[in-house]
Amino acid sequence: MKHKVIIDTDPGIDDAMAIAYAIAHPDIDLIALTTIFGNVSVSEATENALALLDCFGHECDVAQGQTRPLVMEPRPHSYFVHGRNGLGNVEVPKSANSAVSQSAAEYLVQKTREMPGEIDICAIGPLTNLARALDIDPTIASRVKSVSIMGGAVYIPGNVSPVAEANIWNDPHAAEKVFAASWPVVLSPLDVTTKVVLSPHFFADLEDANPKVGKLLSDMARFYARFYRSHSGLNGCIPHDVMALAYLTIPGVYKQKRGAIAAATDGPGIGQTIFNPTGKPTVDPSWQQRPQHTALLDIDVRFFAAHYFDTIAGRPAEIGD
Amino acid sequence: MKHKVIIDTDPGIDDAMAIAYAIAHPDIDLIALTTIFGNVSVSEATENALALLDCFGHECDVAQGQTRPLVMEPRPHSYFVHGRNGLGNVEVPKSANSAVSQSAAEYLVQKTREMPGEIDICAIGPLTNLARALDIDPTIASRVKSVSIMGGAVYIPGNVSPVAEANIWNDPHAAEKVFAASWPVVLSPLDVTTKVVLSPHFFADLEDANPKVGKLLSDMARFYARFYRSHSGLNGCIPHDVMALAYLTIPGVYKQKRGAIAAATDGPGIGQTIFNPTGKPTVDPSWQQRPQHTALLDIDVRFFAAHYFDTIAGRPAEIGD
Repeated sequence: MKHKVIIDTDPGIDDAMAIAYAIAHPDIDLIALTTIFGNVSVSEATENALALLDCFGHECDVAQGQTRPLVMEPRPHSYFVHGRNGLGNVEVPKSANSAVSQSAAEYLVQKTREMPGEIDICAIGPLTNLARALDIDPTIASRVKSVSIMGGAVYIPGNVSPVAEANIWNDPHAAEKVFAASWPVVLSPLDVTTKVVLSPHFFADLEDANPKVGKLLSDMARFYARFYRSHSGLNGCIPHDVMALAYLTIPGVYKQKRGAIAAATDGPGIGQTIFNPTGKPTVDPSWQQRPQHTALLDIDVRFFAAHYFDTIAGRPAEIGD
Repeated sequence: MKHKVIIDTDPGIDDAMAIAYAIAHPDIDLIALTTIFGNVSVSEATENALALLDCFGHECDVAQGQTRPLVMEPRPHSYFVHGRNGLGNVEVPKSANSAVSQSAAEYLVQKTREMPGEIDICAIGPLTNLARALDIDPTIASRVKSVSIMGGAVYIPGNVSPVAEANIWNDPHAAEKVFAASWPVVLSPLDVTTKVVLSPHFFADLEDANPKVGKLLSDMARFYARFYRSHSGLNGCIPHDVMALAYLTIPGVYKQKRGAIAAATDGPGIGQTIFNPTGKPTVDPSWQQRPQHTALLDIDVRFFAAHYFDTIAGRPAEIGD
């Protein structure tokens, strides 16, 4: 049984890495991309999504999502991280295809009605589309198989404020709505994603192993790695978004913890994800009745990197190989 | 030159330990206690403050402070931690003395006018009195020598919510006002205070070394240790408030870090202290213009415990002894 996956995405270099992974992995059936503002504007995200599907040789729906956050003013896009086109300034041919007529939120509601209990939503940008889908039809929460999210920071500092990670900070009100809903959320916060740094050598080898997809990812990674080198002193780049997808296929390599998750929507902590482990008593009463989700806090870094390499190279590994 | 200290306090067992320390230490001139709600009501805090001064044989002013938080509804007092009288159910004789007629905030404003640049305020309860003093006379910020605060949690979870510590959580709006002011704040958060656990044996020996003050503290510690044993599995109790006072006399045993401090006043993180190290860039612009304070993040536990013992026992140690 393949995982039927819809990726909600703002491509984005690591988004491209995640989309390539979903297409390459034999256990994933990528049924659609829904797009969202974030790393780039939503129209750029849609254009990039369509172009990446062409590059990676996959056909599926693309549904364009929200243009701005639920409540607050839009934040600037992250062109300094992902390049002026969101793809590390690598020129990709514009697609002849176009998005479906439905909005991303409408599409998520419809698809989960057509295939109740079967769809894994993997959200790797701001959570505005998911929050809108909950607005349109709250019962969607009972119809998705899982909601795997790249976002937040649990026990470590954020990347845009002392406590906030960019995806959540871009629309904290949407995130809070998503975390407060009773669907099975699996969060991949900076705690787990920043464990993995893929080096320039990794991408050079990937380019050799897969001269088409590997080369494109390697070209994009060059720009991304320059950001990480100058900004964080890292030798390589962090494939944040891939981690949320790979949880579907290799959950056993993650260290996970159950608990309630909330997002701060105001004040100095705006955009922060706050986590309370299941069963931990709090004097503050507001923590007692929230749904329990899963946070991923660590990963077998070597296995993950080898698995990503082998998947893009076209020879998927299994745990125990 | 002795440190001229005003302790703002809600006694409280660890408050009593801190007051005893201030009185016993030869380098501290305890010039007043100002009282605040928190562990107990403010009237109980005043009664306990007056009684403790009698027990410890020290004469100084007591000024009663605010009865409730600046903005929000009062939280329940912490009788389950500190006993029904705030002093571990140890009966102390009611004092014949009474508080001065000024409020705590007025007293702080007046004393810092009389002795500009000389007074260290050591705040070991909710920060409502300090915030009120800033309201009455914002220039007080330039007249205090330091503001040493027990409160908050920087890189570790809180003790009343996943992220909030009790003192800050009891009046987050007051805390945010205090952290936003340009006076030299030194924060002793749970990161440093929870490093120290004083065992029942420690207090038994302290009782032998000082049958009067040591015995009283030991009796109170018995109740406090029961809370820690049942609640946290600790063999002993954490003298949180003492850490904020001892910074005045033994600053060299603390590991410290400069940075901006903010308090969350709303949402799931309410009562959290958020810390951004000096010089650390943030994408979020709100962090750029805040005053820089000091957070204490670690301590030489053995030196601190020995120093506290020797101070109460009447034979102060110096570093290098």
